[in-house]
Amino acid sequence: MDPNEVQHSHCLEMTMEVHQVLPPPHKTTLHKLNNRLKETFFPDDPLRQFKGQPLKTKLILAAQYLFPILQWGPKYTFKLFKSDLVSGLTIASLAIPQGISYAKLANLPPIVGLYSSFVPPLVYAVLGSSRDLAVGPVSIASLVLGSMLRQEVSPTGDPVLFLQLAFTSTFFAGLFQASLGILRLGFIIDFLSKAILIGFMAGAAIIVSLQQLKSLLGISHFTNQMGLIPVMTSVFNNIHEWSWQTILMGICFLVLLLLARHVSIKKPKLFWVSAGAPLVCVIISTLLVFAIKAQNHGISVIGKLQQGINPPSWNMLRFHGSHLGLVMKTGLITGILSLTEGIAVGRTFAALKNYKVDGNKEMMAIGFMNVVGSSTSCYVTTGAFSRTAVNNNSGAKTAVSNVVMSVTVMVTLLFLMPLFQYTPNVVLGAIIVTAVIGLIDLPAAYNIWKIDKFDFLVMLAAFMGVLFISVQGGLALAVGLSTFKILMQITRPKTVMLGKIPGTNIYRNLHQYKEAVRVPGFLILSIEAPINFANITYLNERTLRWVEEEEDNIKEQSSLRFLILEMSAVSAIDTSGISLFKELKSTLEKKGVELVLVNPLAEVIEKLKKVDEASDFRHADSLFLTVGEAVASLSSTMKSQSPAILGGAHTIV
Amino acid sequence: MDPNEVQHSHCLEMTMEVHQVLPPPHKTTLHKLNNRLKETFFPDDPLRQFKGQPLKTKLILAAQYLFPILQWGPKYTFKLFKSDLVSGLTIASLAIPQGISYAKLANLPPIVGLYSSFVPPLVYAVLGSSRDLAVGPVSIASLVLGSMLRQEVSPTGDPVLFLQLAFTSTFFAGLFQASLGILRLGFIIDFLSKAILIGFMAGAAIIVSLQQLKSLLGISHFTNQMGLIPVMTSVFNNIHEWSWQTILMGICFLVLLLLARHVSIKKPKLFWVSAGAPLVCVIISTLLVFAIKAQNHGISVIGKLQQGINPPSWNMLRFHGSHLGLVMKTGLITGILSLTEGIAVGRTFAALKNYKVDGNKEMMAIGFMNVVGSSTSCYVTTGAFSRTAVNNNSGAKTAVSNVVMSVTVMVTLLFLMPLFQYTPNVVLGAIIVTAVIGLIDLPAAYNIWKIDKFDFLVMLAAFMGVLFISVQGGLALAVGLSTFKILMQITRPKTVMLGKIPGTNIYRNLHQYKEAVRVPGFLILSIEAPINFANITYLNERTLRWVEEEEDNIKEQSSLRFLILEMSAVSAIDTSGISLFKELKSTLEKKGVELVLVNPLAEVIEKLKKVDEASDFRHADSLFLTVGEAVASLSSTMKSQSPAILGGAHTIV
Repeated sequence: MDPNEVQHSHCLEMTMEVHQVLPPPHKTTLHKLNNRLKETFFPDDPLRQFKGQPLKTKLILAAQYLFPILQWGPKYTFKLFKSDLVSGLTIASLAIPQGISYAKLANLPPIVGLYSSFVPPLVYAVLGSSRDLAVGPVSIASLVLGSMLRQEVSPTGDPVLFLQLAFTSTFFAGLFQASLGILRLGFIIDFLSKAILIGFMAGAAIIVSLQQLKSLLGISHFTNQMGLIPVMTSVFNNIHEWSWQTILMGICFLVLLLLARHVSIKKPKLFWVSAGAPLVCVIISTLLVFAIKAQNHGISVIGKLQQGINPPSWNMLRFHGSHLGLVMKTGLITGILSLTEGIAVGRTFAALKNYKVDGNKEMMAIGFMNVVGSSTSCYVTTGAFSRTAVNNNSGAKTAVSNVVMSVTVMVTLLFLMPLFQYTPNVVLGAIIVTAVIGLIDLPAAYNIWKIDKFDFLVMLAAFMGVLFISVQGGLALAVGLSTFKILMQITRPKTVMLGKIPGTNIYRNLHQYKEAVRVPGFLILSIEAPINFANITYLNERTLRWVEEEEDNIKEQSSLRFLILEMSAVSAIDTSGISLFKELKSTLEKKGVELVLVNPLAEVIEKLKKVDEASDFRHADSLFLTVGEAVASLSSTMKSQSPAILGGAHTIV
Repeated sequence: MDPNEVQHSHCLEMTMEVHQVLPPPHKTTLHKLNNRLKETFFPDDPLRQFKGQPLKTKLILAAQYLFPILQWGPKYTFKLFKSDLVSGLTIASLAIPQGISYAKLANLPPIVGLYSSFVPPLVYAVLGSSRDLAVGPVSIASLVLGSMLRQEVSPTGDPVLFLQLAFTSTFFAGLFQASLGILRLGFIIDFLSKAILIGFMAGAAIIVSLQQLKSLLGISHFTNQMGLIPVMTSVFNNIHEWSWQTILMGICFLVLLLLARHVSIKKPKLFWVSAGAPLVCVIISTLLVFAIKAQNHGISVIGKLQQGINPPSWNMLRFHGSHLGLVMKTGLITGILSLTEGIAVGRTFAALKNYKVDGNKEMMAIGFMNVVGSSTSCYVTTGAFSRTAVNNNSGAKTAVSNVVMSVTVMVTLLFLMPLFQYTPNVVLGAIIVTAVIGLIDLPAAYNIWKIDKFDFLVMLAAFMGVLFISVQGGLALAVGLSTFKILMQITRPKTVMLGKIPGTNIYRNLHQYKEAVRVPGFLILSIEAPINFANITYLNERTLRWVEEEEDNIKEQSSLRFLILEMSAVSAIDTSGISLFKELKSTLEKKGVELVLVNPLAEVIEKLKKVDEASDFRHADSLFLTVGEAVASLSSTMKSQSPAILGGAHTIV
């Protein structure tokens, strides 16, 4: 024993006056409930800035909260505008081809994609709190919308009805998103964990790419299903339909686009290469088709598009009829998905530039944006990963870049639509494929595998589910799995045996800290979860097993005298949990082992007291503040008292 | 500052050499998985006794495990038999009238109730591991079975089909119970918490009693529904059907039975009073009816019952046809309910007599018992609260008392059935009411209200649900609520601010321990839940809010220098959780605040290391074993270093 330790043990002797375990000051149930609700719905305490302000300021703050444009608008300068102009034009050049492509992905007329890149960005510019978010249709939501509606209505068979359902779904999506924000239930989207999203997006990317085989191979009879198997079969059953001209053209542009993407990844400064590429490809391919009349050589083109900006569509919303259920379901799922993407993107770039986006506020903005969209011929829109990145790279400063984009789109809608008549579908396919390939994030997947095998399993479930069951099926499966994991953590909480770290008063996991040693006569367990109905049976069995194993180890029974439960990690307890102690205590007393609790947290001690106001929890030897004090003071009593007396000692519960 | 403290601070100086945070020794994923599975499915380690035994012993142990009768059988003595005989006869006197009554409650022919008190007890005597459990039909399961099947088939309209469905449901119930045991998924029934059961039983008791109004008032046209409203309406719509003779008789016997019950509650020694009362009432009432030919004066009687023991019924099991779904659902719910009751009763009395019942083993026993029952004209059976209590009071020593009971029932079936021909239904109604009234446990309800308001809410949900929605609806609602609570505890974990308890090295909740004081320059938070995808957003927002509030309190920003996260209560973490630290750290560094982790548990430190093998977690000032050491060593560095240097200090993640 080195001098150091001597000092310690010397100290321990001195520090060994015992500290009481105190309950928290009494609070009324109402007050507690109030607290609980605040923590649940207002963790960020959004009203803090309002406190102690004069009414006028309060009103201004409120207005600014609802319309963030009032915050940055007044300070807006021409200098800012210049950079916003550049970035706005850049994302427009990306938005136009992507808009057309994604609309086709959702089985909607291409022009709806452009409509959706016109109105929503304007709405967001007024309501949104992110400075970088580039708003418009996105691949995932488009895919899901299209595939879900297609289950009941054929987009080719009854295009009008399909369009109506699409707008109605958009309406419900927006309604749902907005209400999530207003009711401050934003945390619901947290259940789509990173792992789930990675798996889901990879799966979706593959599904989307597979769908593009239709236009890339020039097949005219293509399956309506999304699954891996049906698509592949219909691809190879229609080999006779493959058109070499289309395939050739497809490959060329695909290579071109992938090269551009590669360049921009290698040299972020050259972001504009990949940003401009799609538009360039569209122009080139259109000219090409026009020049060589390729449409007569088996290359399908978009065809005539009507001109003019968004027609109103509130008369197309259907809140009745047989498809209402489907429409609401579609709205719900596309709503959650697009919300998740939008919020995630917003947060990411806010963190980069060190400003804050209020999740619930964003939800209201995006939701309202979609509600408005649904009545102006737009389908589900949100902040898109790819475009936002470009927006940020090209130096966007405020939401004005969104305005610039939407004006550009408007000009296109008004005057340039005829130009797209000869745009070949194959190039749109190529654009989509290049866009979604970025959603497959293998390094992240590997990282998850390295850190947490179960998360990897969840990710895999989402991935496989999307590929082989269905888009929403995969999501449900993954969410179910990860919720189940949480429940299992509660039903099977960890109980670890603690030992003393020599020369200190610190008790730690024997398995983690090899130098820690057991204290003869004591069994010290730490319970690492809230104690409730779901785990009392387990905890009871498990604890008794610890005790029995301990008794087997040390042959003469009598020498195990105290079971110390270190409760620092028991954050909550319910009535069943309380009864556990009663039970444990009586079982242990029959074995002549005394139950001792260490450091029960506020809620626990409070409830323990309530069980039986009479019984006193303060007395020296069934409640302690630290394991060290418990062991020290109990071993001293051990020397003095006889086991018999101790056996039936003070009642805790 | 009293001398004591001087000593301490003196000590602290000395004890202030810093201890490392160590990861647990490396384990393979397979090994971990193995551990996890063991903890999940074999917490009681049932194979422990087999370890290191010769094969022969192993076989014997295995046989004894499967057939507990092999354990106590050999040691069985005549002395034991005498007490078992007494108790057996006592519970038989209770089982016969209850059997008949409960069968009627399930809309089954009365005799099925007796069948169910004959075979299952014999099976349980061989397989069961409880010495006190008295097996037979029970009120709750009977009620649920009857009400659920009645949704699709009318017991009066098509009695044969109804009987077939009842037996098939029983088969599925047994199958489900047994497989729960075999797959060791017993913990599923834990989700029916005490609170739920109290509420549910009270509700069920009321429903059952209301159903008895039919026989108590002598109404012939009675509703088929269970709900409070429909029953009351049909009672008062049929006032003209009320027969005063029946009502009079009913009141008399009800008073008689309630008195008997009261006596036994007051004087437990007189348990036989309430135990015998039902049979006595049946005999008296039967004689009365027979004597005064009351059946001709508007008093309905059971009528002719065929004689003889259980006919085989495996030919009546229907595994096809339209009702299969209903039957499986009924089996599932009645299975869970009867299992819960059986296990609970078993555990309670095992605890009283200080022996163990293996939950999963019991499930197999009860399950197998019901499977056998379903093919011998029995419906769902389990261990009944009331009868088991009587059994125990009347001095039962082993499962032989069950055998005695079933033999008595057999004798009844063979020879005494004609005697029941004139038994009035009203007395059966009275028996049921008296039996179920005991299920309403107001003190327990009050106790729950006192301890945990949310549990009370759950209880109320179960109660109201049963009364106004439906039996299974009420259950589902309550289980949903309590699961939701668990999830909320994870999504909104507690974060509390710690302070130093003067004169010690102990840091505790400032709100709970008023004497605790803050340490200038430090913000010490303890996170009281596993960190995962469901709560990182919240934790991030909440922590930053703590920091900001702290910065508002202490005006000159610079003076907040360290955020210490006390991780002792973070029992688990996933990939999202890991990313939280990365995010927090970068945000805090911008504020010139350094993030410090204290005592991360095995799993957490392990994963933190995996994130980036390169970065070293052992270096002095971003990981500490105790808050005390962290504060001490960091404040010393504070004196020496300049904030600038500290600000961008070592990377944790």
